[in-house]
Formats: sequence, C-alpha cells, structure tokens
Amino acid sequence: MSDPKQLKIVVINSLVVPEGADVAAQVQAERARALRIGLLEGGYNILAALPPDADLEEQIAQLQPDVIIVDEQSDAALKKVVAATANERRPIVCFTEDNDKEKMHAAIEAGVSAYVVAGLSAERVKTVLDVALARFEVDQKLRHELSETKIKLAERKVIERAKGLLMERHHCSEDDAYRKLRRLAMDKNLKLSEVAQRMIDVADLLL
Amino acid sequence: MSDPKQLKIVVINSLVVPEGADVAAQVQAERARALRIGLLEGGYNILAALPPDADLEEQIAQLQPDVIIVDEQSDAALKKVVAATANERRPIVCFTEDNDKEKMHAAIEAGVSAYVVAGLSAERVKTVLDVALARFEVDQKLRHELSETKIKLAERKVIERAKGLLMERHHCSEDDAYRKLRRLAMDKNLKLSEVAQRMIDVADLLL
Repeated sequence: MSDPKQLKIVVINSLVVPEGADVAAQVQAERARALRIGLLEGGYNILAALPPDADLEEQIAQLQPDVIIVDEQSDAALKKVVAATANERRPIVCFTEDNDKEKMHAAIEAGVSAYVVAGLSAERVKTVLDVALARFEVDQKLRHELSETKIKLAERKVIERAKGLLMERHHCSEDDAYRKLRRLAMDKNLKLSEVAQRMIDVADLLL
Repeated sequence: MSDPKQLKIVVINSLVVPEGADVAAQVQAERARALRIGLLEGGYNILAALPPDADLEEQIAQLQPDVIIVDEQSDAALKKVVAATANERRPIVCFTEDNDKEKMHAAIEAGVSAYVVAGLSAERVKTVLDVALARFEVDQKLRHELSETKIKLAERKVIERAKGLLMERHHCSEDDAYRKLRRLAMDKNLKLSEVAQRMIDVADLLL
C-alpha cells in the first residue's frame, strides 16, 4: 500500500461539461484537471472515474478501490458514496468548495477521512491522500475495537443469563454452570454465546 | 462555539527568529505570519502564542484553549502537546512541512484532528479549523462510546461474579442475588459495581 502505484483510486465527478457551460461547470472542470494532474504527479493512477449518477454500490463492489475521491459539489454524490460503502468502509476523500459547517460535520460524522474545502491544488493531492489513509486506518481501528467490545458485552449478557438459569435450576455453583455450558458448546461445535442464546430461547418457551 | 471570536486558540511556535537566521527559520517566520493573517481574517483571536519549550501542560491547564495549533517543525513540540492533553483531550491542528508518513501516522494515531502538510495559506486556515473541530467532536463521541462500553463490560464482569458468589452461598436465584446486591448498593449509597467489587474483595479474603 505504500507504493502509490498500487493504490486503486476511484474518482467520482461529472466529467462531461455540458454545452453552454456556466462558470460553476468551468470551475468544476478546472478542479477535475488539477486533481488529475496532482494524482499523476504523485505517481497515482485513477482506476476509474464515475459520474455521481452511476450505480455506485455495484461499481465499488466490482472495482474494490482502496480510496474513493469525491470531487463533486453536490451533496447527493457524497451521500451516495457513503451509502455505497456503509457495509464495507473505505477511505473517502472529499474536495469541495462548500464551507457550510453542517454539511462538513455530516460528512465527517458519516466517516469521510479527509474533507478539504477550497484546497485542491495539484501539489497537495498526494499528502492529502496520505493523511486520509492514515486517518482511515486509525479510525477503523477505533471502530473495530468499539464493535468488538459491544459484541463481547452482548455475548457476556447472554452467557451470564444462561449461567444464571443453570445455577437456579440445578442449584449448582457458577463454575459448574459454566462448565456445563462449555461442554455443550464443545459437543455442538458452537460458540459459548450461541449455546447460551439457544438455552435462553428454549427456557423462555418452557418456563 | 460557532462564533469564531469565542474560540480560544493557543498557537505553539518559535516566534523569535534567531540572529543570522537560516532559510528554514525564515520559512518558519513566514508561516507564522500567514497563520496569524489567516486567523485574523477568519475572525479568530490568538489567546496565547507559546514557544515549544514552555511548560505546556501547566499553560494549557491554565488557558483552557478550545483548539491548539502546532505550527512547529520539530516532532518534539507535537509530542509535548499530545502529552500535555492526554488526560483532557483538545482539538490539535498541526501544520508541517514534513511529509514523512510515519510521523504523519503517529500524529493521527495520537489524536491530532487536522494534519496539514505544506498547506498553510492564510485563506485556508478557517476551513481547516472548522474541519478540525468537527473531526474532534466526532472522534470524541466515538472514543467516549468506546470507553463507556468498556466500563460497562468491566462492571458487568464484576457484578456477575458477585451475583454468582451470592447464588452459590445462598442457593438463591439470579433475581434474588441481584436484589440482594441492589439493596446493599442502595443502603450504602454506592454503585452496583462498587458493591459487587467490595463483595468480591472480601470473598477473596474469606474463602
């Protein structure tokens, strides 16, 4: 991943400038050019450039990009990218001219790794990408730790409840209850929390 | 906080350019100037500018800044700021000329909210600060959720263990054990997990 050439980059922008283009469209075209130059100068290649109205979820699933650059002024484009990567998060870099604070906050809340306002100069593209990748990695680690901890907490609740049921029924010690559960889990080739959940499901029916 | 004038900003940089200054020091002085202009133009005020060799922990504790800008090329300065805010995290914005990836990663891992390489132009300072504040807020929420979940998990382990002890000793049901614990907690005006911890401490001695 440290070799820029290995990085699979997908850019979301409207490449086609409509006829009789207004100033905004010209600015957009200029930005798209600066981005392309910056990527080339940084040694990066663009795997694909997609218009925001493409089927992003399918395209992203097929292309498996390492980073997605949203170089589009419409909120809708960013929202689509966020939705398309909700199940499998990827670094998203957003270049925008819009300094609206609410939109900025929403983008970062949604997990955007770099949000760069009015700052797309060719020479900065590389470092922005580097920072975004580092940010994404750190962020993922934190989110992973949170989801693991939540799972542990949920599993523990289930296991403790099942253990409690066993202790109550068999008037046995906590250790004995734990051993019973563990033996069942091994026999059934299931996780402890799965056996516990099954026990609770049945107990709810029987009691 | 949405009024820039209300934002308490502390800048860490070496303001004094030594006599017979070399090119690096001149560049640094120019950056410090661009930062100051950018902040003023953005409507911000600088609460204090501190040299990196100040007693940062004490100064930060006294000044209670809303954001700390590290505009210094030395790693040591950033490390000092990170250490000085370890117990009470604050948004840290780092402007640097150094594009070393390891340093970048270490800074973000340490919780830096914005890491801007070679990109300090006066007109961008405001949006960089805005993005950094939003980033910090989102990041804090995630970190808070993680620490709360970890505490819950730890407390649950303690409570369940105490409940198990009670069930074993009194041959009572899980609900009864829970009620005993809760009554004791209310009597002693303690958290459930605190009562549970005391019970475990004593049991370890007695058994």
